[in-house]
Amino acid sequence: MKTIEQQIDQFKQALTKEIEFLSNREPMSLYEPVVYALKMSGKRIRPISLLIANSMYTSEQELCMPAALAIELFHNFTLLHDDMMDKAALRRNNPTVHIKYSENTAILSGDAMSIVSYEYLTKLNCPNFAEIIRLYSRTALEICEGQQLDMDFETQDDVTIEEYLEMIRLKTAVLLGCSLKLGAMIANAPSQDADALYEIGINLGLAFQLRDDYLDSFGCEKIFGKAIGGDITANKKTFLMIKAQEKASGKMLEELKYWISKKDFNKQEKIQAILKIYKDLDIPQETEKAIDFYYEKTAKTFEKLSHKDTTSLKAFAAKLMNRED
Amino acid sequence: MKTIEQQIDQFKQALTKEIEFLSNREPMSLYEPVVYALKMSGKRIRPISLLIANSMYTSEQELCMPAALAIELFHNFTLLHDDMMDKAALRRNNPTVHIKYSENTAILSGDAMSIVSYEYLTKLNCPNFAEIIRLYSRTALEICEGQQLDMDFETQDDVTIEEYLEMIRLKTAVLLGCSLKLGAMIANAPSQDADALYEIGINLGLAFQLRDDYLDSFGCEKIFGKAIGGDITANKKTFLMIKAQEKASGKMLEELKYWISKKDFNKQEKIQAILKIYKDLDIPQETEKAIDFYYEKTAKTFEKLSHKDTTSLKAFAAKLMNRED
Repeated sequence: MKTIEQQIDQFKQALTKEIEFLSNREPMSLYEPVVYALKMSGKRIRPISLLIANSMYTSEQELCMPAALAIELFHNFTLLHDDMMDKAALRRNNPTVHIKYSENTAILSGDAMSIVSYEYLTKLNCPNFAEIIRLYSRTALEICEGQQLDMDFETQDDVTIEEYLEMIRLKTAVLLGCSLKLGAMIANAPSQDADALYEIGINLGLAFQLRDDYLDSFGCEKIFGKAIGGDITANKKTFLMIKAQEKASGKMLEELKYWISKKDFNKQEKIQAILKIYKDLDIPQETEKAIDFYYEKTAKTFEKLSHKDTTSLKAFAAKLMNRED
Repeated sequence: MKTIEQQIDQFKQALTKEIEFLSNREPMSLYEPVVYALKMSGKRIRPISLLIANSMYTSEQELCMPAALAIELFHNFTLLHDDMMDKAALRRNNPTVHIKYSENTAILSGDAMSIVSYEYLTKLNCPNFAEIIRLYSRTALEICEGQQLDMDFETQDDVTIEEYLEMIRLKTAVLLGCSLKLGAMIANAPSQDADALYEIGINLGLAFQLRDDYLDSFGCEKIFGKAIGGDITANKKTFLMIKAQEKASGKMLEELKYWISKKDFNKQEKIQAILKIYKDLDIPQETEKAIDFYYEKTAKTFEKLSHKDTTSLKAFAAKLMNRED
């Protein structure tokens, strides 16, 4: 079986070829922004996870590449439209598409990306093709639902931890679940394995997003890759903030509300004040507990797999959570 | 075989049921705008054409309904995003989605509509499912390409008639071609018939769009359903305007350029001036000739069909072009 590094290399080669192909499609004004969005290098977590799951059941891996590309394209389409909706000016230190080109370009090139991802899927040649399109469409729609809930939460004061977890399940976790399951399905893996891999993806996705929430407040800027405290200054309803609102009372709750409602503030002052509240309420520990809970659920689900060699996938999960030995 | 009116009734019933179903999907904030967009009653030309083509080859028409719904949903998705890109405030006298709700809602609910249309297709149960998804995705992407060309033309001074025809082929005609072909494919019609029906859709679509261009300048407001001269005041590069720019010379060309470049103008004055130029240059006759050309091409393509009873489809084409006996 290939190493994770070999899988990453293989995917990057295929992506480079596709980018080359997309660069030559007409009209250029439609496809150039697609290429621009795809080139902002990401960690390619989803397609790699698809390839790893696939490699557990087959050695003919080139067959699943169109699905890996579809997943990566769809993910980048959601980032493109999300950035526009969030009015984000930068992504990975590059101007976002609606800033570099125009809002209309961001809308239309995003639409095209979503459809190109289906076009890739049609290159798959497998007997369960209809089932694949069904899973993919359900997942894609769930991601839209998750993004909508995330936007709704901005103006909703009483978001519960359960609602939050459901939102990140939809917005983040289902695509990882879908990636792993597709990898297995394309290799004609037993359906109980495909289902278990989906479950692994969901729990790993939840752990991953909770860790992202944690790092935004308590991470190291260098490793996290962006400034610490972004969620706090944006009043984002993360696991940490919702938990803090649940646990705080008396003076501490008042202080929390004060900072949330304050329109003009010094960013660092607000970040430090909220971080102190988090610490006083044991929020870092609570969050770590939740991350561990979902990560351990992942580990348990591995036992459901009929396939015994789960080394690569376990290593990938550990790498994703920065828990390598 | 059913009459066109029966097909329209049947589709409207299915759509009403789907709207009911969509109304109950969560989150409501995502699906309510989808329902709103779908309810703005349109002529449902595309799904009806799919049903008519389908009825030529099978009596089990309920099988193709998911595809008819998918096509209507996709068409409405493109209108939703196009309206936002065009900053249109009204559609069929109703506030457009980005005005009634918000721009973010228009982006995300539009994205969801596009994916729901694929979800409908997955309900099809036919052996050529992969081929259907392939045709559908290619068509969807071509529509994006057409919309991009249309936007590009706004700032392009030297658009030729050929480029214009290619743009409307992509933006308008391919969806009609796809609808007719899908109807045949789902009924397992001979592939030469499916291909001929696609060709009929393309030529009918071109004739239909050219007629729309014509009516925007020379139509009767009551029948056309919107104010005459909208294309003229918006400097839209229609068949009429491009032809006029090609044919005009000397003083007439100067006058044309004067009106195109004039920033402040009285709408009626500009419309009357341009209409006079059009008439002086025989543009109405030229446009009618082009419409007839594509409409007659449609008639000729009917001969390629192995199916001999083309009454319904011919009646539908005539109705679409307002050419009933």
